[in-house]
Amino acid sequence: MKLLRLGEPGAETPAVRGKDGATFALTGLTDDIDGAFLASGGIGRVRAALAVGSLPALDPTGLRVGAPLARPGKVVCIGLNYRDHAEETGAAVPERPVVFMKDPSTVVGPFDSVLIPRGSVKTDWEVELAVVIGREARYLADPAEAAGCIGGYAISNDVSEREFQLEFSAQWDIGKSCESFNPLGPWLVTPDEAGDPQDLGLRLTVNGEPRQDGSTKNMVFDVHYLVWYLSQYMVLRPGDVINTGTPAGVALGLPGTPYLRAGDSVELTIDGLGTQRQTFRNA
Amino acid sequence: MKLLRLGEPGAETPAVRGKDGATFALTGLTDDIDGAFLASGGIGRVRAALAVGSLPALDPTGLRVGAPLARPGKVVCIGLNYRDHAEETGAAVPERPVVFMKDPSTVVGPFDSVLIPRGSVKTDWEVELAVVIGREARYLADPAEAAGCIGGYAISNDVSEREFQLEFSAQWDIGKSCESFNPLGPWLVTPDEAGDPQDLGLRLTVNGEPRQDGSTKNMVFDVHYLVWYLSQYMVLRPGDVINTGTPAGVALGLPGTPYLRAGDSVELTIDGLGTQRQTFRNA
Repeated sequence: MKLLRLGEPGAETPAVRGKDGATFALTGLTDDIDGAFLASGGIGRVRAALAVGSLPALDPTGLRVGAPLARPGKVVCIGLNYRDHAEETGAAVPERPVVFMKDPSTVVGPFDSVLIPRGSVKTDWEVELAVVIGREARYLADPAEAAGCIGGYAISNDVSEREFQLEFSAQWDIGKSCESFNPLGPWLVTPDEAGDPQDLGLRLTVNGEPRQDGSTKNMVFDVHYLVWYLSQYMVLRPGDVINTGTPAGVALGLPGTPYLRAGDSVELTIDGLGTQRQTFRNA
Repeated sequence: MKLLRLGEPGAETPAVRGKDGATFALTGLTDDIDGAFLASGGIGRVRAALAVGSLPALDPTGLRVGAPLARPGKVVCIGLNYRDHAEETGAAVPERPVVFMKDPSTVVGPFDSVLIPRGSVKTDWEVELAVVIGREARYLADPAEAAGCIGGYAISNDVSEREFQLEFSAQWDIGKSCESFNPLGPWLVTPDEAGDPQDLGLRLTVNGEPRQDGSTKNMVFDVHYLVWYLSQYMVLRPGDVINTGTPAGVALGLPGTPYLRAGDSVELTIDGLGTQRQTFRNA
């Protein structure tokens, strides 16, 4: 099942896309797709309504696609979680997950413009598998318990300003939290439909040129391990997002460090999770 | 004016404390004290209602005091922002603000218990001046513009687990984001009543023993500078919180590193902002 939100920013209509590609509005069933919806078994209600055909059809033509999740409570990010990316940045493969955070208000729609911050010369891309928490995870006993806490998956562009991130101080968050720096979507894909989260290809192009081409097979710490690990140190709540790291091929690691400039177009795809595309412009 | 929230977690009644110490409910005027309330001029409405005496009296006796702000959008923290604290931790005084983040769901009431995480042996305290954003701050032209973006001030305990923060990786957030790690309040004090934010004494005791005794005079980067600085890199929105750093005297910097144990009682005071007190217990 693919959940999505269609319409202008702040006024999106929650919707679902069935297996045949038809789109239905969730109006009447929920006000929005958010933590409260996930916590209250909303996905089950949508599934039931879809099965009995009680949802009104919605024509998505011409509608903006919003992020598939409203008001994430927090966005937790995992750094250096692919061996090849750790190598390209000159960092060691970590022995524990490297955990940092992004301002959750950076989440925007998958086709929205992304703003290059004023004064930025090192704005970079990162295709990532995003995990959306569907049930509270607090001191999980083992990684196997994590599966029941995952509401779904989405594509995330963990946009990063490398000067702000790496040169201002040793703390990365300021280079990860600039306005519009987290395109998410187009869909929140439920685990049954997403399949094995450790067998998904991730690809990113800039102006049509291939830049990242990896697989979640190559994560240092897998999705279930990450949810379990984080749950030992913080409470993950429905509507929280985990960006699980990026494979090699970011500008920081490429010859000539081809950082993004106004007008550049970035396209991201993850197997089964769709495609997102942003034009970058100056803030 | 002192805004506060009284009642059980998740069901607090928004309230205001007048100059004479009497408490009035804001029921009917707002559902809660949160970003939407601040963004819509809520403080002005409370001030007007208080002036004409139209608010119903509320007896606070026996009521739990909640955090004075519901659902902060993000909690941005400034590290090493007092010279003496930088020195005690062995760090250099930073040339730029050191910016990291806390899970905003760590915010709890000022007298709530704080949980020592499972496996923790280095849980530490940090008394801090919290700034609550009242109006959006985005690319402010200069620090003087920051004054108009501040909704109020509160006491914050930026509880920190030093092993998780400093020994797991170079990124601090995981040691700052444990459950209940951000007692806030008792009040959100408006700027007119809080006075000069750079002339406030901050004190913290553990089991009655003085541990921190500083003044916001000794901040490396002052409050208006911090709001201006952050606004160059992220959008500060109504209901966001900035923890502006802690003076010397944390367990990490004391002889014998006397970290907190279950049963310890921590009391924090900032001039004009009241007192908060927490008992620590095991998660």
